[in-house]
Amino acid sequence: MTIEPGVSPPRSPGRPRSRAADEAILVAALDLLIERGMSATSIEQIARRAGVTRATVYRRFPNLTDLLVHAIEWEYQDTDPAALSWPDIPSMVRDWAGQLSEPRSRRLVRRLYGTVDDLPELLHTYHSAHGSHRGHAVRNTLERARATGQLPPHSDPETLQLVLSGAALQHLAAYPDTTEAKDIEAYFLAVLHQVGFPVTPPSSPSPRPTASRRSAQQ
Amino acid sequence: MTIEPGVSPPRSPGRPRSRAADEAILVAALDLLIERGMSATSIEQIARRAGVTRATVYRRFPNLTDLLVHAIEWEYQDTDPAALSWPDIPSMVRDWAGQLSEPRSRRLVRRLYGTVDDLPELLHTYHSAHGSHRGHAVRNTLERARATGQLPPHSDPETLQLVLSGAALQHLAAYPDTTEAKDIEAYFLAVLHQVGFPVTPPSSPSPRPTASRRSAQQ
Repeated sequence: MTIEPGVSPPRSPGRPRSRAADEAILVAALDLLIERGMSATSIEQIARRAGVTRATVYRRFPNLTDLLVHAIEWEYQDTDPAALSWPDIPSMVRDWAGQLSEPRSRRLVRRLYGTVDDLPELLHTYHSAHGSHRGHAVRNTLERARATGQLPPHSDPETLQLVLSGAALQHLAAYPDTTEAKDIEAYFLAVLHQVGFPVTPPSSPSPRPTASRRSAQQ
Repeated sequence: MTIEPGVSPPRSPGRPRSRAADEAILVAALDLLIERGMSATSIEQIARRAGVTRATVYRRFPNLTDLLVHAIEWEYQDTDPAALSWPDIPSMVRDWAGQLSEPRSRRLVRRLYGTVDDLPELLHTYHSAHGSHRGHAVRNTLERARATGQLPPHSDPETLQLVLSGAALQHLAAYPDTTEAKDIEAYFLAVLHQVGFPVTPPSSPSPRPTASRRSAQQ
């Protein structure tokens, strides 16, 4: 499969009805993947939900994988690597917690991780369009925090970034999608406190998984 | 769905041919789930792979979810909570790295996390049969390490256990299934070094994801 550069499927300029169909197809594909998973996401189902014919879909996308890759690029098209930067760790954590508190985004990322054995292109696309830029910005923030003494001298930004990404995955698997941003923020700060970042104990409730999803923890 | 106590489906004692069929069905179910995922795992496919009729399967298990729950309990039936204990952090890490270096086990755990939105019973069963016992033993080990000064006084065993579980999830998603146990051990030790556990830098290669799976990192 060839992933085309850019975020949009081929289109002719000045054909708004065609662009509307493009967008309806991409939205339908992502919504189906998020709600029902890969096993319920077919070209036929996507066409039906988008209100177009299968032929309309196939004229734009040669196959399901290509369509989903474009849908993921489209979802994350607003990611601007140059703008991804935080002045300090608390700002970074607040931004990350905000992202992780969006139920749709949580389900999408879980779906992408859940398809890694069958369709690794999807997680790869997510990484190229979004994750790698954020990872880079997280490492930069950690690097600066170490340089200014907010993290211990032995801190390794690359390992710490893996720790924080792992904590985010753990949160996605073990905590309910209704968790509020401030509780996710407290969760990240509790993790950062373990690596020596000075944290005032949060006044919000203890960041423990609830019983309902606690099952997902090892 | 009712999860019956114990790890085995109903059976009459002294009917070895029946037990062989039970086991063939459970193995076939797990193998299909691991290799091809939920979308390719049906009672019909399981029966075909086990070399029995669908009726034979349905006599034992009322539905697919019940069958998979029993298969997961069967897979982890050797987990003995009383025996799960490590004298210190390095022993715990060595044991965990050994588990995480088994490709079949890696794929199974990824599948269980990958089905959490559609069939949460599976991850729940894994947790009850295995994960929660290990989590408990990990927290005990961390607690003792803090008491003996191997971890800083501000360490919180509960948060640290989440950090290590998150690191394991991150490894499952971002590193190849061919990673050797000694490299996974170095990975865990690098994480533990960040939380103040004294670690001699390992002589093995730097525990970075390879290019091929690096895509999975944020």
